[in-house]
Amino acid sequence: MRVAVLGVGLIGGSIGLAATERLGATVSGYDGSEQAIDTALARGAVQTPAATIASAVDGAQAVFVAVPVGALPDLVTEALKHAPDDCVVTDVGSTKRAVVASHQDPRFVGGHPLAGAETAGVEHARADLFDGATWYLTPGQATSGVLYERLHRLLHGLGAHPVAIDAATHDRILATVSHLPHVLANVLVAQAAGTLEQGGETLPATGPSFRDATRVAGAPSAIWTDIYLSNRDALAAELDSTIARLGSIRAIVESSSAASASRFDR
Amino acid sequence: MRVAVLGVGLIGGSIGLAATERLGATVSGYDGSEQAIDTALARGAVQTPAATIASAVDGAQAVFVAVPVGALPDLVTEALKHAPDDCVVTDVGSTKRAVVASHQDPRFVGGHPLAGAETAGVEHARADLFDGATWYLTPGQATSGVLYERLHRLLHGLGAHPVAIDAATHDRILATVSHLPHVLANVLVAQAAGTLEQGGETLPATGPSFRDATRVAGAPSAIWTDIYLSNRDALAAELDSTIARLGSIRAIVESSSAASASRFDR
Repeated sequence: MRVAVLGVGLIGGSIGLAATERLGATVSGYDGSEQAIDTALARGAVQTPAATIASAVDGAQAVFVAVPVGALPDLVTEALKHAPDDCVVTDVGSTKRAVVASHQDPRFVGGHPLAGAETAGVEHARADLFDGATWYLTPGQATSGVLYERLHRLLHGLGAHPVAIDAATHDRILATVSHLPHVLANVLVAQAAGTLEQGGETLPATGPSFRDATRVAGAPSAIWTDIYLSNRDALAAELDSTIARLGSIRAIVESSSAASASRFDR
Repeated sequence: MRVAVLGVGLIGGSIGLAATERLGATVSGYDGSEQAIDTALARGAVQTPAATIASAVDGAQAVFVAVPVGALPDLVTEALKHAPDDCVVTDVGSTKRAVVASHQDPRFVGGHPLAGAETAGVEHARADLFDGATWYLTPGQATSGVLYERLHRLLHGLGAHPVAIDAATHDRILATVSHLPHVLANVLVAQAAGTLEQGGETLPATGPSFRDATRVAGAPSAIWTDIYLSNRDALAAELDSTIARLGSIRAIVESSSAASASRFDR
């Protein structure tokens, strides 16, 4: 089996490692960064470095496009232009409506593994990154059933649980369970920095609640900016809802009695 | 050495285990729940069960009051009433202004270990719960230096890093790094429940960001209600600040371009 990975970072590199170690696949890799390709080769995530997208996808049965969301549509278009007829092309972007709407091709299936997040780069890639993880797939009207089935089987082989979902539902759910938590983690970090400065406090005053709540706040910002912008309506709706909920809680805190405060739990 | 623990839950039980195993202390325990005392005895967190507060603190060199914040002031008063002259009395409450202001006694030092959170009950107690954890101490004007020093040494022996801080600064910092994250975790859980229902989605659609951001959301609610109420001004200020920050981010998302969205990072 021949697999192509376009964009050899944490996710692309982990796909390469898992496909090599678990499925015995030969992985060709393309990346704008020569250093990323060198590291991927050294780590065994890629066996065949490719200088162009055309040569990377040549002869592949499956192509994974694993670049930040803003760069996805163009790279998927390019991959589809050069990929064989009997080749499934998928992406790993955190939002799905844009890339799905712009690629009505029997060979394309949108995808999104719920894995990774707080680190980046092929140097952190792991063959077991997807073990037990939900891997959303958003087949379109045009998607070939045979190629969808191939991808489904391949993802199982990587250790993931593939789950079909429509792109709009995916984006709304992800706004709640991923994009909103990421915004809140960054707000918490910014607010804590302000409080610690204000108090003249330099101690590591962070307990387990804070550590866990802010773990993803350090994720690479260019990647998240792309994600926010590609899901702006869903994220704006989530923010509206959060602001309203916090306003209610704030009113309860202000006028609080033990009885009314039990409403925190609802 | 003789240590008394009033309230044998997760924190009190862990103090008892650590004091027994690491300091060779004899621990007397008092709790409203007979079952808690039985479990503490069975687990070795307590060697001497006490039917009254007076008998629990009799002959003790150190008393830990480890009950929910709302019940603290009265129980600390009761402990000070019966404790020997040469005995340090401390508490483990998550907010410190109220209990410190109401106990101007040379034997009292307010305290708060940054540990525990998502579980409750002596059955989850661990001798290593405080290893490496910051343990805030808020000595008052009246606190005896000798007794403060004894407590400081004792907490080191339990594995913690004792850190002196004034009660108001403590409460402001904790509002940011603990109480606010807890509110946000509960808001995230409520909002996710709504989104999943709305989408007719029953899948476990939660990735690592969500899991970590909401870990503390299940913490026992009565305990948290007490904490919120005892720190209402600081928490209200934090909520105001969060609401303002989310409003700004929401405005950027609405009118977003890649350039302005880089402001997410600030």
